[in-house]
Amino acid sequence: MESYKIGILKGDGIGPEIVDEGIKVIQKIAALNAFKVDFIDEKIGGDAIDAYGVPITDETLKVLSTCEAILMGSVGDPKYDHIAPELRPEKALLKMRKTLGLFANIRPARLYEALKEHSPLKSSILSDGLDICVVRELNGGIYFGEQVESADGQSASDLMAYSAPEVKRIAKIAFEMAMTRDKKVTSVDKANVLASSRLWRKTVIEVSKDFPEVTLEHLYVDNAAMQLIINPMQFDVILTSNLFGDILSDEMSVLTGSIGLLPSASINESKLGLYEPIHGSAPSIAGQNIANPIATILSVAMMFRYSLGRHDCADQIENAVLKVLNNGHRTIDLAGKDQKSLSTSEIGDLIAEAL
Amino acid sequence: MESYKIGILKGDGIGPEIVDEGIKVIQKIAALNAFKVDFIDEKIGGDAIDAYGVPITDETLKVLSTCEAILMGSVGDPKYDHIAPELRPEKALLKMRKTLGLFANIRPARLYEALKEHSPLKSSILSDGLDICVVRELNGGIYFGEQVESADGQSASDLMAYSAPEVKRIAKIAFEMAMTRDKKVTSVDKANVLASSRLWRKTVIEVSKDFPEVTLEHLYVDNAAMQLIINPMQFDVILTSNLFGDILSDEMSVLTGSIGLLPSASINESKLGLYEPIHGSAPSIAGQNIANPIATILSVAMMFRYSLGRHDCADQIENAVLKVLNNGHRTIDLAGKDQKSLSTSEIGDLIAEAL
Ligand SMILES: CC(C)[C@H](C(=O)O)[C@@H](O)C(=O)O
Ligand SMILES: CC(C)[C@H](C(=O)O)[C@@H](O)C(=O)O
Repeated sequence: MESYKIGILKGDGIGPEIVDEGIKVIQKIAALNAFKVDFIDEKIGGDAIDAYGVPITDETLKVLSTCEAILMGSVGDPKYDHIAPELRPEKALLKMRKTLGLFANIRPARLYEALKEHSPLKSSILSDGLDICVVRELNGGIYFGEQVESADGQSASDLMAYSAPEVKRIAKIAFEMAMTRDKKVTSVDKANVLASSRLWRKTVIEVSKDFPEVTLEHLYVDNAAMQLIINPMQFDVILTSNLFGDILSDEMSVLTGSIGLLPSASINESKLGLYEPIHGSAPSIAGQNIANPIATILSVAMMFRYSLGRHDCADQIENAVLKVLNNGHRTIDLAGKDQKSLSTSEIGDLIAEAL
Repeated sequence: MESYKIGILKGDGIGPEIVDEGIKVIQKIAALNAFKVDFIDEKIGGDAIDAYGVPITDETLKVLSTCEAILMGSVGDPKYDHIAPELRPEKALLKMRKTLGLFANIRPARLYEALKEHSPLKSSILSDGLDICVVRELNGGIYFGEQVESADGQSASDLMAYSAPEVKRIAKIAFEMAMTRDKKVTSVDKANVLASSRLWRKTVIEVSKDFPEVTLEHLYVDNAAMQLIINPMQFDVILTSNLFGDILSDEMSVLTGSIGLLPSASINESKLGLYEPIHGSAPSIAGQNIANPIATILSVAMMFRYSLGRHDCADQIENAVLKVLNNGHRTIDLAGKDQKSLSTSEIGDLIAEAL
């Protein structure tokens, strides 16, 4: 019997309860498709600080590197707002991305027909729904460049650097992704000002030659931030650097009006991936069994697609989610004024049943 | 008789025709208020390349530095898309900003009641209109940091650097601005990742102590990009760095749905300012007398306010614009389907008359 080893990082806030629903779906899929799953529980964020005094241990990173995929909830809690910078939960994220080589962050956003009214944009702008996938470089750029702080505390700098091989490998992911979608890549940079963006653009154009069927466009990041609002329908795959991707993927995520539905993947060269909802740890509603587990469950679908190579299972999960949404089942974040809302575990149960 | 010396940079595309309307308004205001204006015509962008082979000459910069204010149209034309990078029109902008020390970019955006339906956002989000002012640092950060391109063309980098004095002077502008408005500053950075952002935040907090009446909030840039869409009403003054300001001010500008109305100012320590509409040169409609001159005319109002210290004249112009808009007069970009649209010069005439 085939078997997969999956790392589990429940994290903080609503993390544990939403990850439990993800595990529920994995177990059901495993039973239906006759394979075995080993779950390896590890700690991250405040959870790890409480246990070990650091937001992620080297031991945890070592264990995770032996998994085929990692499912994460969320990290962060106001409790740790005043902790030393090097202990902050986001440091664990950055360290994990770098140590495991998770260079490709993939963030799809779909506006489901059944949830169209939740978008902050006028429906005239969203004629045919919305289906965008941001591919963000996650191991380079200004996130990992040299940082200098002058001894007198009067100046500080960060280096935004890219090499052609770094750009090539993320561009390849974007073009491959476009081949499975609408065959369009929009590369976003600031080549009219930045040297690293000029290298970015040149390299992306080179990679595009291997994908003659894919249309390549370039936008400056300021223009991209506008186009996402006034004409989001023009986008299929958006390819961009670490910093610009941070900004644009978050901007894009709110266009659907249902951030509780959006999954993400961060994968490395050997297809090990970290899968997580893009929403935060929502400490104010933690432990109440009301958080929306769908972003986590759709992250599980991405896990089957990108790390485990089981497109059949991914399709099953995505179809089950669609069915539950189309049947009008909602957690409180998406329920209408006069609509009954279901709990985290009830939605998880319905999706597991719909499989 | 008091007299002002104003540099004029008509530039490319629709630049000349919209600047002509700005001049029309200045002349009318001067006549009404009994002062004299000297206009000094200079060239920028493609216009300068055609005449001198460079997008701005040192001679022009010298002349402009002797003016009290500069009114600009717009630069850029597809004709110059394949010109050498160091000759591109945006190089002229960056050089002018740096040479004249224009460190404070001020971009207000208002959603006029009469034009509410033009916003891409649902009206439920925009309950009370919208009135945001972005204050963007314009002389530092990654725009002017060291750029390195490796000899083999395989890597490139840009340095994002800030010093405390640089942050202080722009923060001061933002807090002073907030004192004339709703007394709230939202400072945007990426202090959870960048060293220069940590310096930024620390320095902004220091400056805030001199403005006890102003509420200061901090947002990470990714979160700010979301908040602008889901809750734009929370903002009064947004204070941010050169790169983040480039992205966020453009994102903000489309929220009003009428980019043809948005002015901007870029001022230096002695209040010399460059005033320009934020929209581009729109080459496709150039020379047709259909472009919207209002952003340019509102830029003239900002000029009176910030460089010439004539708040009375600024108020007169802004009121005249409001009157013309409330009377339903529109250029083609804002005219409804069955509405008659007026020409560039007709709108300029109406505003001059309304003064
Ligand atoms: C928490 C933070 C360091 C992180 C980032 O900036 O990458 C987050 O915003 C994200 O997008 O995953
Ligand atoms: C043309 C370009 C260099 C410029 C910038 O990035 O500052 C423009 O986008 C702006 O915002 O004025």
